Amino acid sequence: MGATTAERAAMRRALELAAQVPARGPNPRVGCVLLDADDSTISEGFHRGAGTPHAEVEALRRASESRGPGAARGATAVVTLEPCNHHGRTGPCVDALLGAGVARVVHAQQDPNPAASGGAARLRAAGVDVLGSVLADEARALNATWSRALELGRPVVTWKVASTLDGRAAAADGTSRWITGRAARHGVHRLRAGVDAVVVGTGTVLADDPDLTVRHAPLTGQQPERVVVGLRDLPASSRLARAAAAGEAVMQLRTHDPHEVLDLLWYREHRHVLLEGGPALAAAFWRAGLVDDVVAYVAPVLLGNGASAVADLGIGTIADAARLDLLDVAVLPRDPEDPTDTPTVRLTLRPRKER
Amino acid sequence: MGATTAERAAMRRALELAAQVPARGPNPRVGCVLLDADDSTISEGFHRGAGTPHAEVEALRRASESRGPGAARGATAVVTLEPCNHHGRTGPCVDALLGAGVARVVHAQQDPNPAASGGAARLRAAGVDVLGSVLADEARALNATWSRALELGRPVVTWKVASTLDGRAAAADGTSRWITGRAARHGVHRLRAGVDAVVVGTGTVLADDPDLTVRHAPLTGQQPERVVVGLRDLPASSRLARAAAAGEAVMQLRTHDPHEVLDLLWYREHRHVLLEGGPALAAAFWRAGLVDDVVAYVAPVLLGNGASAVADLGIGTIADAARLDLLDVAVLPRDPEDPTDTPTVRLTLRPRKER
Repeated sequence: MGATTAERAAMRRALELAAQVPARGPNPRVGCVLLDADDSTISEGFHRGAGTPHAEVEALRRASESRGPGAARGATAVVTLEPCNHHGRTGPCVDALLGAGVARVVHAQQDPNPAASGGAARLRAAGVDVLGSVLADEARALNATWSRALELGRPVVTWKVASTLDGRAAAADGTSRWITGRAARHGVHRLRAGVDAVVVGTGTVLADDPDLTVRHAPLTGQQPERVVVGLRDLPASSRLARAAAAGEAVMQLRTHDPHEVLDLLWYREHRHVLLEGGPALAAAFWRAGLVDDVVAYVAPVLLGNGASAVADLGIGTIADAARLDLLDVAVLPRDPEDPTDTPTVRLTLRPRKER
Repeated sequence: MGATTAERAAMRRALELAAQVPARGPNPRVGCVLLDADDSTISEGFHRGAGTPHAEVEALRRASESRGPGAARGATAVVTLEPCNHHGRTGPCVDALLGAGVARVVHAQQDPNPAASGGAARLRAAGVDVLGSVLADEARALNATWSRALELGRPVVTWKVASTLDGRAAAADGTSRWITGRAARHGVHRLRAGVDAVVVGTGTVLADDPDLTVRHAPLTGQQPERVVVGLRDLPASSRLARAAAAGEAVMQLRTHDPHEVLDLLWYREHRHVLLEGGPALAAAFWRAGLVDDVVAYVAPVLLGNGASAVADLGIGTIADAARLDLLDVAVLPRDPEDPTDTPTVRLTLRPRKER
């Protein structure tokens, strides 16, 4: 039997529930609605992040709370992701659904996580009626970055680059504050708020002494981990060294190998990292094929010299140029109250797959 | 007396007439409508470019043709620019209007050309009723570049620059075809079609062997003059050397001084030139404060090395960066039929006046 109208409506509601949580961390966003035989909602649940109950478990718990034990017996569980079949920080949702006596499971996206998949098969084997792929595209979009990370087996890397019209990231004397406008800088904070870690090279710490925290954007949950890549020691007086000394989430990775960086961050359950620079680190990630998305802030400014936004990529001739798909272009206007501010053009790009 | 409804309507018609001609060459675009005492149109005229009759003279000629000699006696001349008072290739329009017995002149923009101004005063002194500044903003917009050139006392310089996202104008081996997409290249042809001269350095001729003609855009009138700046000889086999040998409008200026270049082009009656590169010539114009408008084509491409779009500007620190106002941003889409084509982002900018 295909999905009923009530089940599709419940799936839309489950997607809404899931979307309440920011798309960060090691776990997908999942929502669940339990329907009784009359198609009325028994309870709802959604996953609030690593270490908290999965959506199905939360919905079952609420069903018991409101209608007493056995409330979910014979019910239909509508859930945005195939119920998991593994022991992580919590037990398998499949066991919880079977234990509660759920008769039918309607799910959207199939679980792309090889460690957690097989839930549908186990449910079917236990006699539960299972229907998958209901509003699956919507569910995949909800966890697009998480899904990409699982497919890649490493964190998704978004490279943020800020430069002048002539591709300079800093002036001849190393100064770079500020090339882009205030709206662009706040945009970077919004990017940070959506990732698990922010990555820079030691050169950036030495040149700019950045803080790398989210300050000018809403943040749900913890600050992203701040990661410095490179062999040089951080000055004890630098903002990041002082933050580390104060026990904040700052980590130095003493390597130049982007693969090693991403392996370590994956191990730390990071699924999406923001690469903020500088030119040498960006080039190392690019050459390793480890840049997945690019957000480029281009200011209407000329410098004529100074550090380039990206270092040598090993490209010798135009036919070998690295080409990107242009997903979006936006003008971030200047603050009309501030004559020193500048507008910035934001380009959202993705490296072409052919390269 | 202010402008009557009929005179304002006639002025709109005169603006329409003027706009039929492309905005190129040493003369402004001007339209003229002659009204009789009943506010009905006697005749119309507009200026078709250097060496042809001025709009007023053309309108007077047509009046005689259609209604016989004396047709303009007592008439009102509605003209988009203050009638000229100087002997150029043609005699002063003031003399023609007085000779025809025009009783009233309603004009829009005052003549900003010091050599030609004073027309209104001479008409008044001869007893003609003169009203100025009717729809003057519209008339100024019609001849914006011409007016700017007169105010500057030199040709207006539009700098066209095409680069990668990281500000490169060519790859390490000098190849640059093609960084930007087809729509951008055709856009450059439209820019060329709107100017009197196209200017490049000898380095660009040696590297790219450009043709610099208008081929992929409609062209009214002659091809813009092609001007090469620099001391090096052009290879006899280059497209421009062959065009010059064939008698086409190609000129080499053996100097590195942008002021000298513009003086020479002004003398040749050029009012608007397109500076097409390369980096050294662009930097020389920029440093001399001789860039008035910028059209930047930025392709979603990375090179990581190769020639920068603009050479050293003598800027040492970010506070001294050259800042521009961003007038427009457009995405020129790629040809969907051609997988090798690329979209391009076009930025239209103007250097900030404070610098």
